[in-house]
Amino acid sequence: MSETPFAAVAVLGLGAMGGSLVRGLSALAPAPEVVGWSPAETERAAAMEAGAVRAAPSDWREAVAEAELVVLAAPLDASCSLVAKLVDAISRDATLTDVASLKAPVARAVSASGLEARWVGSHPMTGSEESGFGASRADLYEGARVWTVAHPAAAERVSDVHAFWGALGARPQAIDAEEHDRLMALVSHLPQLASNVLAEVLADGAVLPGQLGPGGADMTRLAASNPSMWRDILGHASPELIDGLRALSAASARVADLLEQGDLDGVEELMSVTRRWSRPA
Amino acid sequence: MSETPFAAVAVLGLGAMGGSLVRGLSALAPAPEVVGWSPAETERAAAMEAGAVRAAPSDWREAVAEAELVVLAAPLDASCSLVAKLVDAISRDATLTDVASLKAPVARAVSASGLEARWVGSHPMTGSEESGFGASRADLYEGARVWTVAHPAAAERVSDVHAFWGALGARPQAIDAEEHDRLMALVSHLPQLASNVLAEVLADGAVLPGQLGPGGADMTRLAASNPSMWRDILGHASPELIDGLRALSAASARVADLLEQGDLDGVEELMSVTRRWSRPA
Repeated sequence: MSETPFAAVAVLGLGAMGGSLVRGLSALAPAPEVVGWSPAETERAAAMEAGAVRAAPSDWREAVAEAELVVLAAPLDASCSLVAKLVDAISRDATLTDVASLKAPVARAVSASGLEARWVGSHPMTGSEESGFGASRADLYEGARVWTVAHPAAAERVSDVHAFWGALGARPQAIDAEEHDRLMALVSHLPQLASNVLAEVLADGAVLPGQLGPGGADMTRLAASNPSMWRDILGHASPELIDGLRALSAASARVADLLEQGDLDGVEELMSVTRRWSRPA
Repeated sequence: MSETPFAAVAVLGLGAMGGSLVRGLSALAPAPEVVGWSPAETERAAAMEAGAVRAAPSDWREAVAEAELVVLAAPLDASCSLVAKLVDAISRDATLTDVASLKAPVARAVSASGLEARWVGSHPMTGSEESGFGASRADLYEGARVWTVAHPAAAERVSDVHAFWGALGARPQAIDAEEHDRLMALVSHLPQLASNVLAEVLADGAVLPGQLGPGGADMTRLAASNPSMWRDILGHASPELIDGLRALSAASARVADLLEQGDLDGVEELMSVTRRWSRPA
């Protein structure tokens, strides 16, 4: 592990994402000063008990006051709301980031608060279908792609935020906010909802989760994801997601037709296409 | 690991399933005599080199001649064809099993060959989206559910076949062949095809597999499965599978409608239902 460029880090939100972040940071050598905050006292106490934070004050303003980097690790809408309140609370030169899985809504909140020169948004493509500090782990970010988004005014902060993620073993990569959110519609949101609809059909068919093999278990793992967290994200859904769901609907109906017609060549062809896609030469 | 009741086992087919079986059996203490056969010379050579078989003759009749248990680990249709040829080749009291993922077609082939009193069919709910002996591993069956199917005439052989799987760490459970195959339509075949249609939509949207996060990667892992193996299975598809695909199509379209209408309550409700299903109290 290499050193992070920030000597003092405040993490607002101590769920699976924020909790894993404070754990990972505190495990670095040398470790930065890590202060955590959560609206839930139990989460703050859990982070203290795990030795993952130096302090976990009940007032978030106190948590961010000395930080060189402030990380918003709250759900999307809560992160957007926090941005507006941060302006007066963070120190004059602090850098701001967040880990929300859409970047355009956060970018808009940042602009509205005049924080464009301070913010380098992040989206680590990792997580857990479990919620809360209890679902956190120090190595969550290891190997994970982290998309980063910044206004031109914050360009000089990008390399530090990349070094921050790199210290945790993650793989940062810059992207445009709108382009990121369009990409996520297919790369993240569609697989999530595909898992939900499959689980819905299995539940309606009286299948129990314990009857699934490893493949079926993988396909329904995301169906346990936090509904209120996803409600936030899907409230900003791209048209690409809706198009993707309609394409999924048409593709499922087409396979039903092929099987009904006994067109095994057609089914085998579909499977061959997706196998080749899975394993580009 | 406990002892298997069969002192000499022949495994016909040395792919991911058969290869893992010979590896697992040879790792037992005490290990039975394990003879393997594959139509591919390279697979026979690989099994010999791995020390997973005592012998791997090019003639399958030679492989089964001395076996107390003969395991068909070929694709479904090949397993059905082999059954008919086995009658004269296996020893008078040998037990026959198979690992095909549908049981009614094998049961019919067994009846047509008059082998009802010798066969206890098996379906281990495990496997690999990779193919061949190279994808085999000694612990593939550890913890896996193995469904077993037998004619009443073979009732006294069931406990030995259960003990055989138990020695490999698997969890055998008896079931009716038709009931098994109906269950698999939802539990196994539908998740497989859901992965294929999701991968098809992502491929059409120019998404690359490397852009997926861990969730998306899980959701498309099965899309790499062997098309010709699945062609066999889907050639015997239950009406339940076609119904399931149509339900998946309708459910996907419904989520698209909800998002289009901005009905986030509806989406959150769906996610809450599947979360509760995933985690029964």
